Amino acid sequence: MNDLFLRACGRQPVERTPVWFMRQAGRFLPQYRALRADRGILELCQTPDLAAEIALMPVRELGVDAAILFSDITIPLLGVGIDLRIDPDVGPVIEDPISSARDAARLRSLEPAEDIPFLGQTIRILRSELDVPLVGFSGAPFTLASYLVEGGPSRSHVRTKALMFGDRVAWGALMDRLTDLVVRYLRYQVAEGVQAVQLFDSWVGALSPDDYAERVLPWSTRIFGALDDAGVPRIHFGVGTGELLELMRDAGADLVGVDWRTPLDRAWQRIGFDVGIQGNLDPAVATAPWEVVERHADDVLARAAGRPGHVFNLGHGVLPETPPGTLRRLVEHVHDRTAAPQPQGAAR
Amino acid sequence: MNDLFLRACGRQPVERTPVWFMRQAGRFLPQYRALRADRGILELCQTPDLAAEIALMPVRELGVDAAILFSDITIPLLGVGIDLRIDPDVGPVIEDPISSARDAARLRSLEPAEDIPFLGQTIRILRSELDVPLVGFSGAPFTLASYLVEGGPSRSHVRTKALMFGDRVAWGALMDRLTDLVVRYLRYQVAEGVQAVQLFDSWVGALSPDDYAERVLPWSTRIFGALDDAGVPRIHFGVGTGELLELMRDAGADLVGVDWRTPLDRAWQRIGFDVGIQGNLDPAVATAPWEVVERHADDVLARAAGRPGHVFNLGHGVLPETPPGTLRRLVEHVHDRTAAPQPQGAAR
Repeated sequence: MNDLFLRACGRQPVERTPVWFMRQAGRFLPQYRALRADRGILELCQTPDLAAEIALMPVRELGVDAAILFSDITIPLLGVGIDLRIDPDVGPVIEDPISSARDAARLRSLEPAEDIPFLGQTIRILRSELDVPLVGFSGAPFTLASYLVEGGPSRSHVRTKALMFGDRVAWGALMDRLTDLVVRYLRYQVAEGVQAVQLFDSWVGALSPDDYAERVLPWSTRIFGALDDAGVPRIHFGVGTGELLELMRDAGADLVGVDWRTPLDRAWQRIGFDVGIQGNLDPAVATAPWEVVERHADDVLARAAGRPGHVFNLGHGVLPETPPGTLRRLVEHVHDRTAAPQPQGAAR
Repeated sequence: MNDLFLRACGRQPVERTPVWFMRQAGRFLPQYRALRADRGILELCQTPDLAAEIALMPVRELGVDAAILFSDITIPLLGVGIDLRIDPDVGPVIEDPISSARDAARLRSLEPAEDIPFLGQTIRILRSELDVPLVGFSGAPFTLASYLVEGGPSRSHVRTKALMFGDRVAWGALMDRLTDLVVRYLRYQVAEGVQAVQLFDSWVGALSPDDYAERVLPWSTRIFGALDDAGVPRIHFGVGTGELLELMRDAGADLVGVDWRTPLDRAWQRIGFDVGIQGNLDPAVATAPWEVVERHADDVLARAAGRPGHVFNLGHGVLPETPPGTLRRLVEHVHDRTAAPQPQGAAR
C-alpha cells in the first residue's frame, strides 16, 4: 500500500511528494466520457460498480497517490429528499430554493445507511481494489447553502448573502442543519472506509474575512471538531481564499488546500508550518505545453521547499480541456523532482 | 462644482469622503430599466442623449460625488469592427474569437473621432450638465483579451490562459494591440472632457502573481505611462486581486480599487499609503437591511481611518437587486460619518 499521501498529511517525512488532482475522476478522461455518454452524473454516483470504476480510472491512468470518491456535492442533499437535478450546461438546479427559517426546517436529518447506501458500497469496493488511500469529501455548509438558496450555481451569491446578512435566525438554522448533515455524511464515509476527508467550501472566497469569521467559521469549526476522533486527516479547501487562510486554519483541519492565486510559500506562512498544505498549480496551466507546466510545477515545489506536510495538487478541479498525458507526466515529474535530495531554502 | 472626488484622488484633505458606485448607472435604477425596456444596451451607449441621461440618473437620485460615463466594456472593440453582440442572459458574445497571432493582427487601430464619435458627444453633454467630476473608463488588455479569446464571459478563462501560456508571440501581439486601443480610447475620453479614468482589469484576479507580473503587468504599466501627461487621476481596479495589489500599484495608477475580499486597511498597507485607495463594501451587503449596511460601511471607514486618498465605493458593481434607497442613504451616511472629526487610529 502506497501511504505517501497519508504520511504527508501527518507531516511525516516522505521519500517523494504525493500527488493527486481534484476532479481527477472527471470529464478530461476519455474513459469517463464514454461512461457518461448515456448516463447522468447522479446515476453514475448511485451505481456503486460504476462509481468505483470511475474513481479507479485516474489511479490507473495517472499514477496518483490518492483516489477520491466519485460522487457529487449534491448527493447528501438528494439523500434527504431535496428535489434537484443536474443540468449539463448549468450544474445543480434546486426546484424549490430555501429562503426562510421555515424552509431550513424542512431539511431533515441524514441517515446515510438508509438514504445513501450506495456510497458505502462504493467505498467498500474501492477499498478492496485500491493500493492508494481513498479520500472522501463533502461540500461545506456555506457552499451547500449557496446551492440551496440560489437554486443553482451563482457568481455573486447574492441571495445567499441576503439571507446571511438579512435573517440571522434563518441563516443559523440552515447552517446548523447543514453542519449536522455534513458531519453525518463524513462520519459515515469514514466508518465505511475512507482514509481522509476533504471539506470543500468552494465558494467561501466570496466573503470578507469578518463575514466569514462571523457567519461561516463557527459551523466549519464544529465539523472538524466532530471529526477529531475519526482518526483520518482532514483537508479544508476553498477557492479565492487568500485573505481567509488563517481563519480556515482555525477551523481545525490538518491540511489547508490553497488555490493558485496565493503563492504556496505565502499561503503556508499564513496558515503556519504546523499545518499541512495542499496545492496549488493553476488548473489552466495543465492545459499548456509541457515546458510551461514543468516551470510552474517546479515553482510550487520550490516554494514548498521540501517541508513535511505538502500534498501536490491543482489549485482547483482538473479542467475538461486537460490532456491526460500532461497529468501523467506531471505526477512522474513531481515524484522525480522530489525524490532527489531537496535543496534547502529554495523557496523564493 | 463638487470636487471632493478629485481632491481625494490627489490625496488632498477633504471635508468628507467622496462616494460613487461602480455600475451606479445600471439595472438597479427603475428609470434605467424603463429606458432599457425597448432598447439594447449598445444602442443606449451609442445614443448620446440617452447615454448622458443615464449617467446623470445616479447623480440626481443618489447624490454621489462622481459620475461615470455610461458605456460598455465592448464599445472600443465594436469601434474597430469586432463582430459582437450583447446577449441579455450571457453578456458579450464575440462571433469569431481570437486564437492566434494572425487573428490578433486583424485588430486594427482605433480612431475614436471616426469610430466612436458618439462617446465624445456624450462626454460633452455630460460636462455641460454635471456639477461633479466625470469618470471615463476602459477594460484593461487582459480583461478585453479574455472576452475576445473566450468569445464571451468565462469562469475559468481557460482559452485565454491557453493562449497566454501556450503562444507567447500571439499573446504579445494581442496585448500590444489592445494596449494601443486602450490608450487611444482613454486619451480620447480625456481630450473630450473626462476628469478621471478607471482601468477595469476585472478578471485579472484569475492569475497568480508571477503570471500576472510576466504576462499582464508590462502592458498595464504602458497604459498608465501613456496617461502620465493626461493630467487626470488614474484608477486601477480588479476583482479578487488581494495577492496582486502590490503589482497593480506598480503599474502606476494614482488609486488602486479593491474588492471587499481584502479588508481596506490590509489592502492599503500592501499598496502603500502614498497611493490612494477606492472601495470596498461588498455589493451584496447593499442588498441587506440598513443596520447591516451601516455596520459594514462604518467598518470600511474605520479601516480608512481618515487618511487622505480614500474614495468610498463598492468592491464591485452595484447588483441589480439593490434598493436605490439604500445607496442614497449610504452616500449620506458616509458623508455624515466622515464630516465629523475623524477618530485617530480607529482602524482595527
